[in-house]
Amino acid sequence: MAIDATTPWEALTPLSFLERSGAVFADRTAFIDGASRLTYGELFDRVRRLAGALREQGIGPGDFVAVLAPNRHHLLEAHFGVPATGATVVPLNTRLATPELTYILEHCGARTLLVADELAERGVPAADDAAHDIEVVHLGGSRDTYEQLLAAARPWWQRPDDEGSLLAVNYTSGTTGRPKGVMYHHRGAYLQGMAMALHSRLSSDSTFLWTLPMFHCNGWCFPYAVTAVGATHVGLPRVDPAEIWRLIEEHDVSHLNAAPTVLIDLVRHPDARPRPEHRPIQVATGGAPPSPTLLEQLADLRIEVTHLYGLTETFGPSVICEEPPEWRDLPADQLARRKARQGVPNAVGGRIRVIAPEGTDVPADGQAMGEVALRGNTIMAGYLHDAEATRQAIPDGWFRTGDLGVMHPDGYVELRDRSKDIIVSGGENIASIEVEQAIASHPAVAEAAVVAGQHPRWGETPVAFVTLHADATVSAEDLIAHTKQRIASYKAPTRVEFRELPRTSTGKIQKYRLRELANDAE
Amino acid sequence: MAIDATTPWEALTPLSFLERSGAVFADRTAFIDGASRLTYGELFDRVRRLAGALREQGIGPGDFVAVLAPNRHHLLEAHFGVPATGATVVPLNTRLATPELTYILEHCGARTLLVADELAERGVPAADDAAHDIEVVHLGGSRDTYEQLLAAARPWWQRPDDEGSLLAVNYTSGTTGRPKGVMYHHRGAYLQGMAMALHSRLSSDSTFLWTLPMFHCNGWCFPYAVTAVGATHVGLPRVDPAEIWRLIEEHDVSHLNAAPTVLIDLVRHPDARPRPEHRPIQVATGGAPPSPTLLEQLADLRIEVTHLYGLTETFGPSVICEEPPEWRDLPADQLARRKARQGVPNAVGGRIRVIAPEGTDVPADGQAMGEVALRGNTIMAGYLHDAEATRQAIPDGWFRTGDLGVMHPDGYVELRDRSKDIIVSGGENIASIEVEQAIASHPAVAEAAVVAGQHPRWGETPVAFVTLHADATVSAEDLIAHTKQRIASYKAPTRVEFRELPRTSTGKIQKYRLRELANDAE
Repeated sequence: MAIDATTPWEALTPLSFLERSGAVFADRTAFIDGASRLTYGELFDRVRRLAGALREQGIGPGDFVAVLAPNRHHLLEAHFGVPATGATVVPLNTRLATPELTYILEHCGARTLLVADELAERGVPAADDAAHDIEVVHLGGSRDTYEQLLAAARPWWQRPDDEGSLLAVNYTSGTTGRPKGVMYHHRGAYLQGMAMALHSRLSSDSTFLWTLPMFHCNGWCFPYAVTAVGATHVGLPRVDPAEIWRLIEEHDVSHLNAAPTVLIDLVRHPDARPRPEHRPIQVATGGAPPSPTLLEQLADLRIEVTHLYGLTETFGPSVICEEPPEWRDLPADQLARRKARQGVPNAVGGRIRVIAPEGTDVPADGQAMGEVALRGNTIMAGYLHDAEATRQAIPDGWFRTGDLGVMHPDGYVELRDRSKDIIVSGGENIASIEVEQAIASHPAVAEAAVVAGQHPRWGETPVAFVTLHADATVSAEDLIAHTKQRIASYKAPTRVEFRELPRTSTGKIQKYRLRELANDAE
Repeated sequence: MAIDATTPWEALTPLSFLERSGAVFADRTAFIDGASRLTYGELFDRVRRLAGALREQGIGPGDFVAVLAPNRHHLLEAHFGVPATGATVVPLNTRLATPELTYILEHCGARTLLVADELAERGVPAADDAAHDIEVVHLGGSRDTYEQLLAAARPWWQRPDDEGSLLAVNYTSGTTGRPKGVMYHHRGAYLQGMAMALHSRLSSDSTFLWTLPMFHCNGWCFPYAVTAVGATHVGLPRVDPAEIWRLIEEHDVSHLNAAPTVLIDLVRHPDARPRPEHRPIQVATGGAPPSPTLLEQLADLRIEVTHLYGLTETFGPSVICEEPPEWRDLPADQLARRKARQGVPNAVGGRIRVIAPEGTDVPADGQAMGEVALRGNTIMAGYLHDAEATRQAIPDGWFRTGDLGVMHPDGYVELRDRSKDIIVSGGENIASIEVEQAIASHPAVAEAAVVAGQHPRWGETPVAFVTLHADATVSAEDLIAHTKQRIASYKAPTRVEFRELPRTSTGKIQKYRLRELANDAE
């Protein structure tokens, strides 16, 4: 029985979070950016001025405004100020080269580019090279035009009438092919923001350090989550372990999000020490499961880790390794194995399946592999201007992640591999992640990545690329022997190379590069 | 620019919270009911069996199922199990008399009544007296038919396709006139549940004691909030301070909600003592602002209070006295004054206004009085079968609360009085709440209620009804003198009576009874 609401529903939108905190937490510090501070009252005022300035440039619904900026206040302001005009914000990956930026600016038809001073060298030519005219606004530095615009602007603020409106487009990092523009609606961003606040236990007491790029999946929707509760954002223009430790200490940071790589750097850094005078730090991590060794080292530093999983297409982490309190009674190695799972849909995260090639669910036995598929309110509306890619990704209402995993009997999903990363050796499927974890369990190993190398007899064979802890040594032979003690011999690497791991601009290991390396050297 | 979702959105419904926790927290204790325990796995199974049993009785969309039960597991099961059939749950006030129950059962046309053994004496005749046939299911006791039904049922579970579907009808307590049936939709209950979890900082570690009636505004949507995070519910069939203290100790309770009256009883009880071996207790309270004295006494017991405000029509507390951390630096009396405010819309709570009789907003000066009005996603869909009352309550999309208040410059609303409780003396408006707080600041006073008495010269005059702390004494004269030291003399009561305060079944002070008493004795 459906009923008509007598009071009109309000569209769910993350803009409502800033509107509320701008009033309720008006005098509270919203953003710490080096030596400068913005209160929520000031932030809300600046955001409204940005919206007003953009409107005066003719920006409104249907338009796209791109931003190329590090994790400073400008980018947070744009996350709210652009949608407040009805336009769509396009946060750009700060590590892209000029031609890649031009491609994106042209693809979405950006009318305006906000570009940080330190990125102008790549950003301005990218706008110049585009086939259409793009208004460039300089953020900070000697060429700053942003502050003038804000000072002269008539404030503007409007929430969307339709929660299905286009809030943002986030381009995939595009390890293969051209980047695709992932469309975010207001409803999904609102709900994901609520879920992130709830699961991270954010409150107005929290201080959130921006180690995760704010351009990446809209910063996992933490711009909204942190703002919703009136917590303090701490900017971080560049990921630098010494600076992170300094800021943690100076501002008594309670929360940060980071890939395991960043966590490894933090643990290795000479400033790493438990800080009993500070509160524990809640860390959400994604990308790769944290190894048992890393989890232990982090626990010693009073850093509590939650493992999340998601993609640009899912508004960031739509799956969380939820830890029932009972898990704490598990022995450390069992706990680490549980925490390495990707988990279950978050509180707003819809549904998850693991699908066999023939389209049926694989048995929930923790063994049978299939492709992870998701549906719900936090799945993208599709790829911008690419109906065909959208149809392939969401053929039947279920978004195909391209990740292979198993379903455990308790409903937790655990990834085994990216579809294309699986190693097929002598007809047997080998999950590279399993090999990686076996290698990483050696005390000398900091990180390991395993890919398929060509093999004359078996077709493919696991090849391992490994970085060691500072001052640690181990031979390839010993590492292979160590691995064979943990997993079946046929899964052990036949070759081990010691080297730094190549990464995408968002910190993912570039396995395709490693595959080239594995086969070049063959 | 609106976009079409390629993956269908899922209807927002609190049913999704149980579905998720039934899987994720399957082995975790969901409900403690005396000596018995239900895990979330068991709870979900029982709920599905209840839904299956109801369907076998022909219950489905468009039907109403009423429940008359104390705060035990049956009522929580019904909050999920009835809507899982597509039908609407009608939680009944356990203190109503038989004819009142009959009125409600007839008004909504309930097809089934679930009735607890201890309430059968009033509930069964109420169903018998109704003009239509009502199937009665007995919960517990020697006549139990519920467990048989569950045991024989084929489990059933279906979420609504439309988040505007009718989840529940909650009848107002009806201090004047017939109770009205307030219609709750799934969307509002889902969002309100999220907000309550977020603001109360509930997590899977929490233990929630059911001091607030679960029938009252759907238990402020805490049945969903507590379930969403996988926390443990603790049942409480009857509000008894000794039992509350015992359960707090036995289960290390972290959260409860209660009217100030219950908190006063807790503070007064001989078992009241700080429990340093336990965690602090988070309490949300509504109905009346907690007095400074009560706040201090609670703080000594490590009970941290948040003041909320809402009505049945707003899914419970849609307004919260949000406390920015900076408030903690305020002197105790200033902090108490701030905490006495009703506050701001909660994180999902939409918008609030204070409206003058001519329909404009009063100045936000903390002085000008007007009627508090609300709109957003957590406003009722209307009164069941009463379009005229709905139109009066929501004439223009804004729900009129009937409460008078002021808007502070920082956007916080503070109630001054129920419209009908205001005292007009010599042409001056006196807010009874201000008089009550002045009286309650006397150390001997436990609680005070002030109403208008008739006065030959001034028209009306404040008459105070006061309860004292055990062993405390104070004369009426001294109390009037004390009050005049705090507020203008014309606002001081001209008469003070010492007596217990009459209450509605939900704990609200029955001011209309006091007005009768004030004028009977005149």
